[in-house]
Amino acid sequence: MILIGERINGMFGDIREAVLSRDPEPVRHWALRQYRRRADYLDISTGPLLEAKDQPEAMAWLVRTAQDTADLPCCLDSTNPEAIEAGLEAHRGKALINSTTADQWKIDIFLPMALKYKAALIGLAMNEKGVPKSAGDRAALAMEIIVNADASGFPMEDLYLDPLVLPCNVGQEHCPEVIEAIRWIKTLADPPPRTALGLSNVSQRCAERGLLNRTFMVMCMAAGLDAAIVNLDDDELLKAVAASKVILNKEIYCDSFLAAFGNRD
Amino acid sequence: MILIGERINGMFGDIREAVLSRDPEPVRHWALRQYRRRADYLDISTGPLLEAKDQPEAMAWLVRTAQDTADLPCCLDSTNPEAIEAGLEAHRGKALINSTTADQWKIDIFLPMALKYKAALIGLAMNEKGVPKSAGDRAALAMEIIVNADASGFPMEDLYLDPLVLPCNVGQEHCPEVIEAIRWIKTLADPPPRTALGLSNVSQRCAERGLLNRTFMVMCMAAGLDAAIVNLDDDELLKAVAASKVILNKEIYCDSFLAAFGNRD
Repeated sequence: MILIGERINGMFGDIREAVLSRDPEPVRHWALRQYRRRADYLDISTGPLLEAKDQPEAMAWLVRTAQDTADLPCCLDSTNPEAIEAGLEAHRGKALINSTTADQWKIDIFLPMALKYKAALIGLAMNEKGVPKSAGDRAALAMEIIVNADASGFPMEDLYLDPLVLPCNVGQEHCPEVIEAIRWIKTLADPPPRTALGLSNVSQRCAERGLLNRTFMVMCMAAGLDAAIVNLDDDELLKAVAASKVILNKEIYCDSFLAAFGNRD
Repeated sequence: MILIGERINGMFGDIREAVLSRDPEPVRHWALRQYRRRADYLDISTGPLLEAKDQPEAMAWLVRTAQDTADLPCCLDSTNPEAIEAGLEAHRGKALINSTTADQWKIDIFLPMALKYKAALIGLAMNEKGVPKSAGDRAALAMEIIVNADASGFPMEDLYLDPLVLPCNVGQEHCPEVIEAIRWIKTLADPPPRTALGLSNVSQRCAERGLLNRTFMVMCMAAGLDAAIVNLDDDELLKAVAASKVILNKEIYCDSFLAAFGNRD
């Protein structure tokens, strides 16, 4: 299970302030903290409030600051191709681009960019019409991205498809469809593409966020989820991930399984 | 989700003592407590230590004592047909027989008994050769029970098929097979049979029992589990069940979902 720490994101006030004032300390704090809590990638987003023209330089600064502190690859999270490319230029190692949609014009930007920089790529199961409701329609959009990747020789194991979950207080009927979509997406190519999710979205503005997050995470892992952008400060989530690895026979049970593949603190 | 309280079982010392001395208090205590914590059925077992000749009368006494306290149906849990029949004679309402195996001679005892008493029946995916490892072999044994039930006009919605989970420290590779078997069993007839599990077995003699139990429960619910014999004293398990109902869109989300369909205490 690939865990992507969600915290270096301008949606959070401390990171937004850090970006505006180029104060490295909050970025270093979260880079190190998420590293210790078993992050495989650091999600990096300048946040939605920064003007588009300022995003590329901010993205490059965030990537350099984060990687100077923690030796981890980054998940470059932006809808702005120039910000993504600036992040790729600054990045050491193999980055993960987050994300293209299934719109052809976006695929035509991000897929060549991923190939050029030897980066992995997240593809969202949505297009300009929005997020479809059914598992089948999600899989169909994922397939459009897969077909493009296949045609351009992009390695299938570098393609992560995100069926996109909505908050369960507004799009509850999407939740089981997302789980089913994960199962279907894993059957769409051989070798199969990978799957990813922005986990915390399932509980936006809901009560019992941690409980909903980890319950959804466990179900998605059983369906074949490979990667998730998550709140690594959530101990119970990390325990649920460790227990899921045992139940799914991905890691061998031992009495100390929580210490062995839970939290690194 | 049908929750069957596991606690009135002679494997527990207080119930074993209660059975031997015919002391109704421990039985009343657990009947009421499990009722309050949202039991749909009370599992009733005299336990493995009582001699076979003493089991029928003990089963009948347990059933009467439990049902005099809590107005709930019982899951009559024994390998002894005479104990099951004594429990059925004493039972008010629709009982659940736990269980037959896929051995023909056992099916030939318990299926007519279930029909005679208009009881539901749990069928285990095992036979005299033991518990098979793969999901497919489990489903094949379940199918033998389904075929028998169908041939004798037994209502499919009264048939509960249990793929049988082993403790994950000795049979870890069985866990994902059990989850897959649940999914398959739900496709074997139309209307589908129900599925059931003795949940706590997954964590026997393991560390972090509650965590393993609820993680497995959530995965099995996503695969189509209908009923489980569980430890209703486990608050976190009940929360996970409530959250699973939300995620699977079986109950409508509200901010007070834990109070609405979690613990009744």
